[in-house]
Amino acid sequence: MDRITLSHGGGGRKTEELIKGLFQKYLKDPLILEMDDGARIDEFVLSTDSFVVNPLFFPGGDIGRLSVSGTVNDISVMGAKPLYLSLSFIIEEGFEIDKLERILQSIKDTAEEAGVRIVTGDTKVVEKGKADGIYINTTGLGKMVFYPSPSIERVEPGDIIIINGSIGLHGISVMMARGEFGLESDVKSDVSPLWGLISGLREFNVKFMRDPTRGGLAQVLNEMVSNKNFGIEIWEESIPVSEEVNGVCEILGFDPLYMANEGKVVLVVDKDDGERVIERMKNSPYAEKPSVIGRITEEHRGVVTLKTDFGTERIVMPATGEILPRIC
Amino acid sequence: MDRITLSHGGGGRKTEELIKGLFQKYLKDPLILEMDDGARIDEFVLSTDSFVVNPLFFPGGDIGRLSVSGTVNDISVMGAKPLYLSLSFIIEEGFEIDKLERILQSIKDTAEEAGVRIVTGDTKVVEKGKADGIYINTTGLGKMVFYPSPSIERVEPGDIIIINGSIGLHGISVMMARGEFGLESDVKSDVSPLWGLISGLREFNVKFMRDPTRGGLAQVLNEMVSNKNFGIEIWEESIPVSEEVNGVCEILGFDPLYMANEGKVVLVVDKDDGERVIERMKNSPYAEKPSVIGRITEEHRGVVTLKTDFGTERIVMPATGEILPRIC
Repeated sequence: MDRITLSHGGGGRKTEELIKGLFQKYLKDPLILEMDDGARIDEFVLSTDSFVVNPLFFPGGDIGRLSVSGTVNDISVMGAKPLYLSLSFIIEEGFEIDKLERILQSIKDTAEEAGVRIVTGDTKVVEKGKADGIYINTTGLGKMVFYPSPSIERVEPGDIIIINGSIGLHGISVMMARGEFGLESDVKSDVSPLWGLISGLREFNVKFMRDPTRGGLAQVLNEMVSNKNFGIEIWEESIPVSEEVNGVCEILGFDPLYMANEGKVVLVVDKDDGERVIERMKNSPYAEKPSVIGRITEEHRGVVTLKTDFGTERIVMPATGEILPRIC
Repeated sequence: MDRITLSHGGGGRKTEELIKGLFQKYLKDPLILEMDDGARIDEFVLSTDSFVVNPLFFPGGDIGRLSVSGTVNDISVMGAKPLYLSLSFIIEEGFEIDKLERILQSIKDTAEEAGVRIVTGDTKVVEKGKADGIYINTTGLGKMVFYPSPSIERVEPGDIIIINGSIGLHGISVMMARGEFGLESDVKSDVSPLWGLISGLREFNVKFMRDPTRGGLAQVLNEMVSNKNFGIEIWEESIPVSEEVNGVCEILGFDPLYMANEGKVVLVVDKDDGERVIERMKNSPYAEKPSVIGRITEEHRGVVTLKTDFGTERIVMPATGEILPRIC
């Protein structure tokens, strides 16, 4: 009998198979757009995410900050201002109230930082061994403020690709916090609510935005070119990667392109707006190193190509989703 | 160190302590109204619920039907038409795809029955032993259609209390399905989306509605009188309880008043509208035995009183929440 595997939840190919092969067989509403992390309903956006990160506390953040940021970012990249969140807990019997308080404080702080209101909630408790401390669902309602709406359909050859800073911080931070690899590192997760950054870009010709979470930058770029009549070219030398992330990845044989981010946004903008977008981003605490990392190409349709530091080219494949369970 | 216990999730006194003592210390938005299962935002209602029912399939329903119905009903009793649902899965590694398909079919069918659209979703997979098959969150967006809005503030002495049918069916069905008690019964859960029933009552003077889920009828009635300057009197002979539910409760020493329902609504209506409300409900498949079960009283403020079949009176206490974990 076929069974669910961890890779079905990894955000890569197996997740896509599950969604397209099974979920959409039963639940294919026209409002579910293939490329979006939320639904557009008139001038509103509705987006949901459940968070099962392990461990609950990691350098740079915790499940509370993550569960607010994740949904805030999904709404923001659709071009909507996040307004309201619901909050639903599944708590394992025996979970320490102290930890719950720290998580609640973090949720409160992050919601204030993001300017969203938490307006309703739910709590369930399950027996010991039927969860892993706490799981949190947030669902958010936002209002469209980017017009014309960012949409993959607006992307065309010549557009440039921008990211707000270093990749892989969340993935490496959580992986190190698990202590499985016997390594120590100073890597802090980038987990942040990005509306404060994204809202400042409304005046530019932003054609598409996406947050590269599970499956990392590689996965998001591949989703963008999937079944499209354009390709993407990215430049290794331009992609911000911290020394620490590079170091850990080299030791463990991982590729930063596939490492999860929780405070990053990938933007496709009109070439003529590129410089001004970068300048504007520099004013934000959520953009530690805004960079033009690539461009939309006519050639190599449906494919993501990396120009390496050595002047060679290689294809960036979609994520398989098998590396890291429970990163978010 | 203080820890979370199963009774914190039971919907009774301990849940209230957790919400008021802890959650509201950090998250007290003016939009969170004490008596509501959702947030009213202008003409919209947002409501969330996570479902962890055990077992996943039980006589009369399954976690799929439950997770659509639960949120649909929370929105409906606020006087809003449920329009859109988000759907978020936490699935345990190894879960059978066959079961997932049955649940998806049930979600699809129930959403169609309720007239809601499932517009966005999320899937996470956790390791074996970190969940119990599958947990589902649904969050719903509805639009207010009852004006003036149903509100506990509109309730006054003389109003009557109506329920749409027999109590305790969901609680007993799930309990029996667990097989812990070595009993067999024919009790089927009442799990149903009630908008089809509730929408037909807009023209009447409906002052307040609530679905008596965790903690049953006793808990809902107690929440209604809490800190209010009225009391509630209910009449044992008028409260519909099936023979099977009565039988199981007698054997096990449970009280049907505390058993969960998932297809019931308690309404407070103007006395003059009572007869017409009952007549209207009789047309609905969701009201197998609409009944006037009690009234709002000036005396016994803050207290729920039961007039028994023997002509005596007793106080109906709030639920402790310790009877049945994971009923929804």
